Amino acid sequence: MEKQINWLDILIRCRNNLQEQIKPLLKTLDQLQPKLGIGAGGDPIKQIDLVAERAIVNTLKEHEISFTLISEESGIEKYGQTPHDNYVTLDPIDGTTNLVRGIPFYATSIAISTRPTINTIHTALVTDLVHSTTYTAQKGKGAYCNNQKTAPSKTKFLETAVVGIDLNTYKAKKTARKLTNLIQKTKHIRHLGANALELCHVADGTTDAFIDIRGKLRTTDIAAAWLIIEESGAKITTPDGKPINVKLSPKQKVAFIAAANQKIHRVILNLMRLEKEIE
Amino acid sequence: MEKQINWLDILIRCRNNLQEQIKPLLKTLDQLQPKLGIGAGGDPIKQIDLVAERAIVNTLKEHEISFTLISEESGIEKYGQTPHDNYVTLDPIDGTTNLVRGIPFYATSIAISTRPTINTIHTALVTDLVHSTTYTAQKGKGAYCNNQKTAPSKTKFLETAVVGIDLNTYKAKKTARKLTNLIQKTKHIRHLGANALELCHVADGTTDAFIDIRGKLRTTDIAAAWLIIEESGAKITTPDGKPINVKLSPKQKVAFIAAANQKIHRVILNLMRLEKEIE
Repeated sequence: MEKQINWLDILIRCRNNLQEQIKPLLKTLDQLQPKLGIGAGGDPIKQIDLVAERAIVNTLKEHEISFTLISEESGIEKYGQTPHDNYVTLDPIDGTTNLVRGIPFYATSIAISTRPTINTIHTALVTDLVHSTTYTAQKGKGAYCNNQKTAPSKTKFLETAVVGIDLNTYKAKKTARKLTNLIQKTKHIRHLGANALELCHVADGTTDAFIDIRGKLRTTDIAAAWLIIEESGAKITTPDGKPINVKLSPKQKVAFIAAANQKIHRVILNLMRLEKEIE
Repeated sequence: MEKQINWLDILIRCRNNLQEQIKPLLKTLDQLQPKLGIGAGGDPIKQIDLVAERAIVNTLKEHEISFTLISEESGIEKYGQTPHDNYVTLDPIDGTTNLVRGIPFYATSIAISTRPTINTIHTALVTDLVHSTTYTAQKGKGAYCNNQKTAPSKTKFLETAVVGIDLNTYKAKKTARKLTNLIQKTKHIRHLGANALELCHVADGTTDAFIDIRGKLRTTDIAAAWLIIEESGAKITTPDGKPINVKLSPKQKVAFIAAANQKIHRVILNLMRLEKEIE
């Protein structure tokens, strides 16, 4: 059974169902926004998270797929007769704060793997819920953005680069020197606040790197984007330059340096090691 | 003559004309994007900048308005019989790098003043060119987003705040301590890459603060947003907490702390002064 599943097709159906289901909720939220106190967004947001997750679970069930769900929202749940055949790692809404506050960047992230480990992911989808942009990848088949094959940038120098850095509640005092070198050299720093999407921006050349060395992000956030990065030809490693080899679990944390190509990856890595820049 | 001009109406007409004129160019750019090398975007972008500026100048001329244009794009130019009656401070595209790279966040900024000084600005418009959001303000009449009156957030603590910081080519080593305190305390750091728009996000409660202490930004970038911030009830000062009182000129630089309310403004100011946080 398992081998006959067209996972890419299934993930597109998941996305379509999700978009349809959350549309009325997003509209309600938009009307509520001016009246929402900060932090008062809890209920409608939680509802969107749950509806998004349910849309995906229902689509998978409709196709009679057995799977273990690894979700940022609801932890680990098993579905069907043989739930260990497929692992579905899901972040229903990546960029929740953006959605609550009205910053137009948030996404859904889904990764399919044969084991609960990042390096067995074989199919992935990240969809920008505001701008109708969908990134997909299948192992060995490249990365795509809206059905067009994507490639990362060829930028080699930070002096012309656009680099995303997640600084949220970063222990800046403790390890400031690791990033000050990088910030000082980089032409354009960004943080849009939806990490899965920002990783996909490296895969398709929108930006040149995205870095999160806090060790606070969950693997559920980056699972799908990890494959999209790998398949695009861009590079993603730990802050020490090692392959990312982690369990997929709502509790597992991860830190990474994603960069468009080997060269700029090495430039960043070396700056963060406080070593001299290798040419 | 001058007193009869309905400036808000004129600025809306400017925006409509601009959007119509640049639409085909944005489409062309979108098709070019995957093939654009980094930095190769110069020509189409320059063209969009010029077309945007021309759309605004033409709209003003059609209404037989005399004015001095202070433009990020083309410097200072005089139009009509009495060009010193009105000063039009313009950034045709705020967020050029975003536009070049395909990050969906860029804006047009127009401010009208009686003198080439920021505190004589009486009417302002900032329009998000991707998301159809237009911010406007008239002196003494409040700030509006898509014709709805806007107000900033009531967030008082960085521990729950969303704060934008422009770190582009920031001299991080030299003055890192000024920002590390702030970064360490703040729950959510953002930089979307279009400063006029990010200031408007403080005015309408989307974020809680936006800070640029580099002293590299031009007054043409913040002129319109300055009035929108002031009229919304949010607070914008120099990094020393003084009123921003600068000339409007393509060469004049500015640094600022914009914050949703007096309280969080003071929290940020004190952190940056490396003083103890005042309760």
